[in-house]
Amino acid sequence: MANWFSRFSRAPRSVDTPRLRARGGEQATTKVELAEFTPDLVEFLGRSAYVQLMLFENLSRAISTAPTTAAKTAIGRAAELSMAKHRRLVGEIVRAGEDPSTVMQPFTRIVDDFERDTRGGDWFETVVTCYLTAGFLDDFFSRLARGLHDDTGRRIAAIFTGESGEALLAELLTEAIEENPRLSARLAMWGRRLVGDTMLVARSALQYSEDHRSDEARIEPVFTTLITAHTQRMDALGLMA
Amino acid sequence: MANWFSRFSRAPRSVDTPRLRARGGEQATTKVELAEFTPDLVEFLGRSAYVQLMLFENLSRAISTAPTTAAKTAIGRAAELSMAKHRRLVGEIVRAGEDPSTVMQPFTRIVDDFERDTRGGDWFETVVTCYLTAGFLDDFFSRLARGLHDDTGRRIAAIFTGESGEALLAELLTEAIEENPRLSARLAMWGRRLVGDTMLVARSALQYSEDHRSDEARIEPVFTTLITAHTQRMDALGLMA
Repeated sequence: MANWFSRFSRAPRSVDTPRLRARGGEQATTKVELAEFTPDLVEFLGRSAYVQLMLFENLSRAISTAPTTAAKTAIGRAAELSMAKHRRLVGEIVRAGEDPSTVMQPFTRIVDDFERDTRGGDWFETVVTCYLTAGFLDDFFSRLARGLHDDTGRRIAAIFTGESGEALLAELLTEAIEENPRLSARLAMWGRRLVGDTMLVARSALQYSEDHRSDEARIEPVFTTLITAHTQRMDALGLMA
Repeated sequence: MANWFSRFSRAPRSVDTPRLRARGGEQATTKVELAEFTPDLVEFLGRSAYVQLMLFENLSRAISTAPTTAAKTAIGRAAELSMAKHRRLVGEIVRAGEDPSTVMQPFTRIVDDFERDTRGGDWFETVVTCYLTAGFLDDFFSRLARGLHDDTGRRIAAIFTGESGEALLAELLTEAIEENPRLSARLAMWGRRLVGDTMLVARSALQYSEDHRSDEARIEPVFTTLITAHTQRMDALGLMA
């Protein structure tokens, strides 16, 4: 874990596409995959459904403290989309013949801890958390879902790649930073801080083999890709990652 | 205002259908209407859209403090339906050529005050608030919407009579009361208390004529009907209204 975080903190700009290509020894067009680390269906669904619920709760909190009704409405739309994802995942749990709350229960602690650690000190940080962690985790779970059985995998991956409130949140944040440029440095620092905790909660979802060292070598390029996407999300707000 | 509330508090069981018939001098089948008190479209939409947002925020709060993940998921569904209503109302504001946040702004104070006064002291009271105030206000706004212009009125009324989380919330509360019967008296008292504040926020939406006394006489049967429905919602939980 430490190496990912410290590398990102020190020199995020070096984590770019050319480097990814050189490191992985692959063509950029070769898709890096997580499929071999996918846990069984029920575990996958229990964890990701509870993560989605947490992401929804973060958005709800951002609505309550929003400075304008326009912001409330925009975040409300993002929250609605987030809840719809949670509900589709709960639907998949029921379809698999399991009880949603039983299946989510084992993951409440790690996810609640993540929520607490990434809550942010004010409304702006909370919205940055909503924007960056949902983007990262949707991206992660859609990749991980591809390791599930054929049709099920495709159907579940589509839940995570479906419509999200990302653009709405980016717009809100961009406006806020334009109005108050002094926010920029603080939110950039917050965005950099989030990546460590977000990766931890993502990595806890991976099912490792006996050969941990070999696993790490194969996981690394995927996380590099996820971090690159995180950096791009920060770029979209004009924040230095 | 006072007469509604005190009557309800003193002898709620007397507010039943036969009495309504006798008082109004009408057949029970004659629909009591609010149409003549409907404000103009933009005012109606601004107020009701902000009310819906507040109802959604109440549900969100109930999710964050829910004791079980099953409760989180159930309330989450109710929250999603509530947000969808808000968004449809915002869509109607845009359709009317207005800016949603500008149009909602005049109503933030009264609605925020209502939210604060009806927040409840714990999770159970919060869920009772969500259940009873949403039921009352949906009922109220759907009636008031019928005074809007033809097609528009029907379309907007349908937003309020559409799918809601009422049954889900009733189920959660019924289970909670069955598990802990001592909750019953406290939640019954809370439910009775809510009706006064809820009527106040509803009545503030009415556009009165010059003849206030005559207005009151025509409004009374409608509110009697709304209170009867409120009583039935409490009955459904086994609570004495």
